[in-house]
Amino acid sequence: MPSPPPERPLGTDKIDWPLRPDLAFLNHGSFGSVPAPLQKAYDGHRAVLEADPIEMVGRRCEGLLASVRSRLGHFLGADAAAVGLVTNASSGVGAVIRSIPLSPGARMVTTTHVYNAVRMAMKHRAFELGGTVEEIELPLQATHPLHLTPLLEAIGRDAPPGLVIVDHVTSPTAAVLDVATVVAACRERGVPVLVDGAHAPGMLELNLGELDADWYTGNLHKWTCTPKGCGFLYASERVRGITHPETISHNLGQGFDREFAWQGTRDLAAWLTIPDALDFWDSIGADQVREHNHALCRAGKELLEEAWGVAPIQSPGRDAMGSMAIVALPESIQGQCATPDALMVHLHDVHHVEVPVIEWKGAWHVRISAHVHNRLADYERLAGAVRASLMARREQVSSVPAPA
Amino acid sequence: MPSPPPERPLGTDKIDWPLRPDLAFLNHGSFGSVPAPLQKAYDGHRAVLEADPIEMVGRRCEGLLASVRSRLGHFLGADAAAVGLVTNASSGVGAVIRSIPLSPGARMVTTTHVYNAVRMAMKHRAFELGGTVEEIELPLQATHPLHLTPLLEAIGRDAPPGLVIVDHVTSPTAAVLDVATVVAACRERGVPVLVDGAHAPGMLELNLGELDADWYTGNLHKWTCTPKGCGFLYASERVRGITHPETISHNLGQGFDREFAWQGTRDLAAWLTIPDALDFWDSIGADQVREHNHALCRAGKELLEEAWGVAPIQSPGRDAMGSMAIVALPESIQGQCATPDALMVHLHDVHHVEVPVIEWKGAWHVRISAHVHNRLADYERLAGAVRASLMARREQVSSVPAPA
Repeated sequence: MPSPPPERPLGTDKIDWPLRPDLAFLNHGSFGSVPAPLQKAYDGHRAVLEADPIEMVGRRCEGLLASVRSRLGHFLGADAAAVGLVTNASSGVGAVIRSIPLSPGARMVTTTHVYNAVRMAMKHRAFELGGTVEEIELPLQATHPLHLTPLLEAIGRDAPPGLVIVDHVTSPTAAVLDVATVVAACRERGVPVLVDGAHAPGMLELNLGELDADWYTGNLHKWTCTPKGCGFLYASERVRGITHPETISHNLGQGFDREFAWQGTRDLAAWLTIPDALDFWDSIGADQVREHNHALCRAGKELLEEAWGVAPIQSPGRDAMGSMAIVALPESIQGQCATPDALMVHLHDVHHVEVPVIEWKGAWHVRISAHVHNRLADYERLAGAVRASLMARREQVSSVPAPA
Repeated sequence: MPSPPPERPLGTDKIDWPLRPDLAFLNHGSFGSVPAPLQKAYDGHRAVLEADPIEMVGRRCEGLLASVRSRLGHFLGADAAAVGLVTNASSGVGAVIRSIPLSPGARMVTTTHVYNAVRMAMKHRAFELGGTVEEIELPLQATHPLHLTPLLEAIGRDAPPGLVIVDHVTSPTAAVLDVATVVAACRERGVPVLVDGAHAPGMLELNLGELDADWYTGNLHKWTCTPKGCGFLYASERVRGITHPETISHNLGQGFDREFAWQGTRDLAAWLTIPDALDFWDSIGADQVREHNHALCRAGKELLEEAWGVAPIQSPGRDAMGSMAIVALPESIQGQCATPDALMVHLHDVHHVEVPVIEWKGAWHVRISAHVHNRLADYERLAGAVRASLMARREQVSSVPAPA
């Protein structure tokens, strides 16, 4: 029996989302849209900046960003001084990979669940250095502490890695990893560790000060619904002095906070909307929103598993699953559609369901998301769309790549 | 006798600018504001993206950006395939500095007029490599081809530089440099050359294909008035294969165009407004706008020189000056104000004049700009504000840094 749909947090029914009303949007995990009150806040910041551009974007930039970082630090459980703003988590990862002094031949370690863009950034740096990237194989659902043993073993080897990157919530497989254990193992061995928390803020409760990774990067344009282009990089005091943004500018050598506060002319209004977004979710109840999204995701996952007659993959506990889940597709769907991307496009274009289709060791899955605009009917639509596709003749939709 | 104010291009009077109406805004060179029709175009793109986010920002991204690059290439006199989008010229410079394979100990060459953020990026890379940055001293107005002789000599030395960076329009000194001569000298010696054209698009007519530098970077949020966060990097066919964006992502190794088309989740709407901005200025007459801005800048410059009784610095010819100019401040102003930044803040806060104050070899200057929203009265206001400041008691305004 699928779980019942959870009660919706008070006030979330009234949020005006700009999403197409005919779309079952089940990919908030990649990115969603900006609710009307936050769009309005953004427009307000923009109007203020545009009226007096040099004063606001130039001279007052650092002061304005200091209050953004203070509010964001409070949300993340981190000192404001530890937080720099970036466009997205990929840029946070890039900043770390570029900043850390790696020796020629250095070994970087991650897992097979690494986000593909991060894999590419690691490979690129390894190529420059004549180094290597080692991807530790973890099972599909690596959410039990014991599953991390191979990774801990790689961290503990005699020649320690030059850098470890581990995901807080894995992108292709939606698993919440026990990053505290990985960070502790790295800290014990003196191995630099970056947690890629791209999907975590707004999905999991964070306390970065307590986690005490060397670096942690994340996005605010996913679950906290800021305008796109809002990411952050947390740097512990140990590494703050060596950590530079990807775009080097005027403030080089003046400290982490000043270097990240000016990365060339850019849209400051998006970053200024971060406190509005955090306050917005607090006014509704950020805890209730997270709990609702988790419970709805679980209900959606169970509904799909029952509808398709597939075995559950993901443990639905709060420690192992946030507000994304992966569900195996019926095997026979692979006979109906040329590629996972073609199925994704077909579901969007024909059935008005947006959901990523992910191949993992040859098997196809959907990665569903749940935010407060979602209803159980969205997952029912997905269930029916896949059943309908199973009965249709083989689609020959061309493959279109999509970032996940 | 100052030149008379030029006739304004037809239709420019009707443009609605969001600038504070009480502000004489003379720093369009750093960045200005987005006129209402382009703000509207931006809002329109944003609404379309937010309604169907994964479809538009994810799957259709490359196609949408291909048409942006095609329109932009036409504007720049370059193949669409040669143009990648970046947040700003600093990020374009960073991409080149990171991409070019420099040997340990490499010598990078630029001039003393280099933009300070670029200086920092060069120093940072030199520090990593154990290399050096050589700044060739050029006179304050280096607009005669003969002035470039020391730079050409540095390019021609027996041990050629690993990279030359030369400004098309210098930031601190507003000089238009003869970059064609510098590029030709580099090409002849096989020295990689990047032209920093941050200030050029919309100020000068560009034909990047003909110039044939290895790289050319520029901003569109200055003189073409797009939303902030719109820059480009041109890469000649020779270097396209080795040129990567600062943020490495999914498309690494898939070619220049695909790599720059996805640099992580960001505000695509700003980039989509680039064709609107170029069409907007074409509908008015981009040539007339450039000529007007040049002529108004010249008139403003002459007005200030006469009002302050200072000798002209900049040659007002079209080859040496675009729509920015520097004018020496009366020497005695340095006795009235603690720092150039303090004077800039004073002019803004007290006199509602926005203009950068620049120190060059101990002497203070203003760098004025002219765009179609400016009137001769703006320069008169600046002239009077400085005269009034000369008569006031010494101001003790605290120094505030500002990007130029």
